[in-house]
Amino acid sequence: MMQKTTIIFNKKVKLNKPILIVGLPGIGSVGKLVSGHLIKEFKAKRIATLYSPHFPHQVVMRKNGSIRLVSNRFYLMKSQKAGGNDIVLLTGDVQAVTPEGQYEVNSSIVDFFVDTLKGDFIYTIGGYSIGEGIVAKPRVFANVTRTEVISEFKGHDIIFGKSRGLIWGSAGLILAFAKIRKIDGICIMGETSFLEVDASAAKAVLSVMAKKLNLKIDMTSMDAKITKAASALHALERQMATGYAPPGHEGEGNESKPSYIR
Amino acid sequence: MMQKTTIIFNKKVKLNKPILIVGLPGIGSVGKLVSGHLIKEFKAKRIATLYSPHFPHQVVMRKNGSIRLVSNRFYLMKSQKAGGNDIVLLTGDVQAVTPEGQYEVNSSIVDFFVDTLKGDFIYTIGGYSIGEGIVAKPRVFANVTRTEVISEFKGHDIIFGKSRGLIWGSAGLILAFAKIRKIDGICIMGETSFLEVDASAAKAVLSVMAKKLNLKIDMTSMDAKITKAASALHALERQMATGYAPPGHEGEGNESKPSYIR
Amino acid sequence: MMQKTTIIFNKKVKLNKPILIVGLPGIGSVGKLVSGHLIKEFKAKRIATLYSPHFPHQVVMRKNGSIRLVSNRFYLMKSQKAGGNDIVLLTGDVQAVTPEGQYEVNSSIVDFFVDTLKGDFIYTIGGYSIGEGIVAKPRVFANVTRTEVISEFKGHDIIFGKSRGLIWGSAGLILAFAKIRKIDGICIMGETSFLEVDASAAKAVLSVMAKKLNLKIDMTSMDAKITKAASALHALERQMATGYAPPGHEGEGNESKPSYIR
Amino acid sequence: MMQKTTIIFNKKVKLNKPILIVGLPGIGSVGKLVSGHLIKEFKAKRIATLYSPHFPHQVVMRKNGSIRLVSNRFYLMKSQKAGGNDIVLLTGDVQAVTPEGQYEVNSSIVDFFVDTLKGDFIYTIGGYSIGEGIVAKPRVFANVTRTEVISEFKGHDIIFGKSRGLIWGSAGLILAFAKIRKIDGICIMGETSFLEVDASAAKAVLSVMAKKLNLKIDMTSMDAKITKAASALHALERQMATGYAPPGHEGEGNESKPSYIR
Repeated sequence: MMQKTTIIFNKKVKLNKPILIVGLPGIGSVGKLVSGHLIKEFKAKRIATLYSPHFPHQVVMRKNGSIRLVSNRFYLMKSQKAGGNDIVLLTGDVQAVTPEGQYEVNSSIVDFFVDTLKGDFIYTIGGYSIGEGIVAKPRVFANVTRTEVISEFKGHDIIFGKSRGLIWGSAGLILAFAKIRKIDGICIMGETSFLEVDASAAKAVLSVMAKKLNLKIDMTSMDAKITKAASALHALERQMATGYAPPGHEGEGNESKPSYIR
Repeated sequence: MMQKTTIIFNKKVKLNKPILIVGLPGIGSVGKLVSGHLIKEFKAKRIATLYSPHFPHQVVMRKNGSIRLVSNRFYLMKSQKAGGNDIVLLTGDVQAVTPEGQYEVNSSIVDFFVDTLKGDFIYTIGGYSIGEGIVAKPRVFANVTRTEVISEFKGHDIIFGKSRGLIWGSAGLILAFAKIRKIDGICIMGETSFLEVDASAAKAVLSVMAKKLNLKIDMTSMDAKITKAASALHALERQMATGYAPPGHEGEGNESKPSYIR
Repeated sequence: MMQKTTIIFNKKVKLNKPILIVGLPGIGSVGKLVSGHLIKEFKAKRIATLYSPHFPHQVVMRKNGSIRLVSNRFYLMKSQKAGGNDIVLLTGDVQAVTPEGQYEVNSSIVDFFVDTLKGDFIYTIGGYSIGEGIVAKPRVFANVTRTEVISEFKGHDIIFGKSRGLIWGSAGLILAFAKIRKIDGICIMGETSFLEVDASAAKAVLSVMAKKLNLKIDMTSMDAKITKAASALHALERQMATGYAPPGHEGEGNESKPSYIR
Repeated sequence: MMQKTTIIFNKKVKLNKPILIVGLPGIGSVGKLVSGHLIKEFKAKRIATLYSPHFPHQVVMRKNGSIRLVSNRFYLMKSQKAGGNDIVLLTGDVQAVTPEGQYEVNSSIVDFFVDTLKGDFIYTIGGYSIGEGIVAKPRVFANVTRTEVISEFKGHDIIFGKSRGLIWGSAGLILAFAKIRKIDGICIMGETSFLEVDASAAKAVLSVMAKKLNLKIDMTSMDAKITKAASALHALERQMATGYAPPGHEGEGNESKPSYIR
């Protein structure tokens, strides 16, 4: 068992023309913050779990005293209006470690979404950083599978054609593999400034997605994270001389930190 | 030969409802100290050997002038009362190097224990470190495959639900794969303070296991290790300015150190 | 999909005794500059694309707002005289990351060229650096599959038998695999001085190839790169105290730089 | 092609009860110096070549202007007396990079020697370093597949049972895999002091092998290397303040150094 990337259904579901939103760990934790926020706010239910030998060889210690293998997880947000697109959210603890693992995991995700869930549009979420310094008001950049897709997002405060360089990992490969399978998609990136967990960038992305997907998203808890990060940043500036870093927390809305156990 | 993880029987055995105790190299060498101590004190016999191309490409030079390939090794402690659970101990020189190797080796271990040895409960042993500083009286933490398992360990001085973060390697993956195979298990962790070989943490774990498994364990040699480590630590503190480190020893109860040969 | 190195035709073509010129990223970007220049000057058309799970897990953000998976790409320069050898140019964003990946990708390239394109001679282009210091007038060194090939290149200002050491990656492996398949080839190396993008070395290689292949190559844009690099170098010397580096650009004639997104 | 470790015969041979002597790159280059010296002195002929995708992705530039893929190479020293054991020497440019590659390459070597060449005893050669400082008169240590083999080497100035720690790479794994295939062998190690190329250690090994194998080995060229290394060491001591290192040379008797080409 477990010699290949494997997706297991947690519950059997019937979906209506689902779209996929991918929010995995990455720069500024923007993707994971976005997917975590949507899962919490819309009480999305887990429908499937992806395990892979290409993930770091870790298990997570849960607060209830049990463990779980690190994974990527699919959640379902049923459409609130009849006939509307269901939304499948993908979040997780980790991404694959090697290029070969990234290719295997991300092509499994696209194949599962296309062949099993019969979906036909994919959003991937990431962070985008141009230079140094704190970003006061994060902009939202995006790239698409084909230029024809851009027109569907006009008027949504998304900047196209100005992002440069490379997209690493799932946010990029899932889009590339979607394109090969003739599925359209978009990678939406919140401008970020090298923070480990950048809730401002995540909020900026959530705002454009709310408009596009016609969702009313409560931002209270995200705003709390922004405030908290701002104070933490101030604390960090004071503590930089000592090298002291405050401990992290585990959960869908945060990056898990490795601790010292095996 | 040797392109896949392989388990070879050293002697054919008949086991009675065996439980598995996994003590492999890791943080503080807690697991390896525990398994090594039990093997020595109870004169456990080797029954099987696991080789893997995912282990470091090393052989060990033995004191008798021969060599052996690095491996993981299964030992048998027959139950001292009729009808009681036999205990299978797993120790070894190394763990697999890559995530893919960890998945292959640890799923092989679980499959062997479940399918071939017909076992149904697994203990994995590790070290757990919270912060800095020397731990005077190490506590024992644990995580289980399912919360239902916790009740079986109440009243044994084991702390549940307070350990946080990640378990790396065999101690975690074996439990996770057991869970997938519907086998229960527990990861018992001795609190440790970044010592390379922490006999105090190992003794703490052995104490709770003695109670639970109803074993009378002679701690004389473990106490000697604790005393020796304490003196070594003092020596180390004196020598830290010079960068000098005393040479290590090879054996079941110690971490093998790589030397400069090939 | 995408578990193995894959070459996909972009357009179906009929080739006349093609020769292959390989110019991939490497020392001084000499290979990529050469292939990029030939593609641009001779308006070569893409005929096939190679994808591989052994490439870095990246996609490139294009100026038009879309994305593309990193790849190696085959372009066709039809021979300008009837019956002449067609030229297939290979360029790309990246090389494979691991030795195993390099073997898979480069043997796929050779097999494709020999079995599918029915070609029978291969040029690979690289940079060659002897020592420190700036090279004022770069020399051109070469190594061949068999000594018999050297005579075909006499009188072309190419130095044989003086280059020492190892050739890493595609420029070397493609030649070695060609030799195994009984195909001849040459690795032509421009002398370079550790510049990241060394247009002088590339021009030196292009000059000897122009003679050998009887091509008239306009060097205006390459000369512009040389001039620009010279000014950049001066600027760099002035800025070395500050650690500031100017941002890079993406395109066939330049090395793509990773940016901070995923 | 080239997706697996492959051994190709250069000439078809008929061997008489061959023994294998493995001298590959490693600590102090002791193994490679020993095999290189025997090949040169006894004009051994190459009989087979091993290629592997687990070797570094390099080709060697030869002095005659051609290239060759890095490899391991088998040479034949026919026995000088009728009915005597033929000697097969294994040398090479490199060892496999990863543990998985080491397992594949070294088990291929043992399988080839046992199944194809019908051999039944293996010598592997390595360097052994205990501490710091220059070794004036290098001792020779050894480890064997089974303790019973030791008696065959008594009275040959070889120290058994005093070497400690681990043997990395081919010198160890080939012996371990031989043992699994029920073939005997010995790893002979010259004491070395962290020199990159330690001809003194190699000479010490050659001396005990000459006695055991009843070979008369001319040491003139090895003595020259020892003298040359001694002067180089003195030069190095003088140059250590400047960080300057003299360039290396490529050839069977030396470690190939990577240069800056691809």
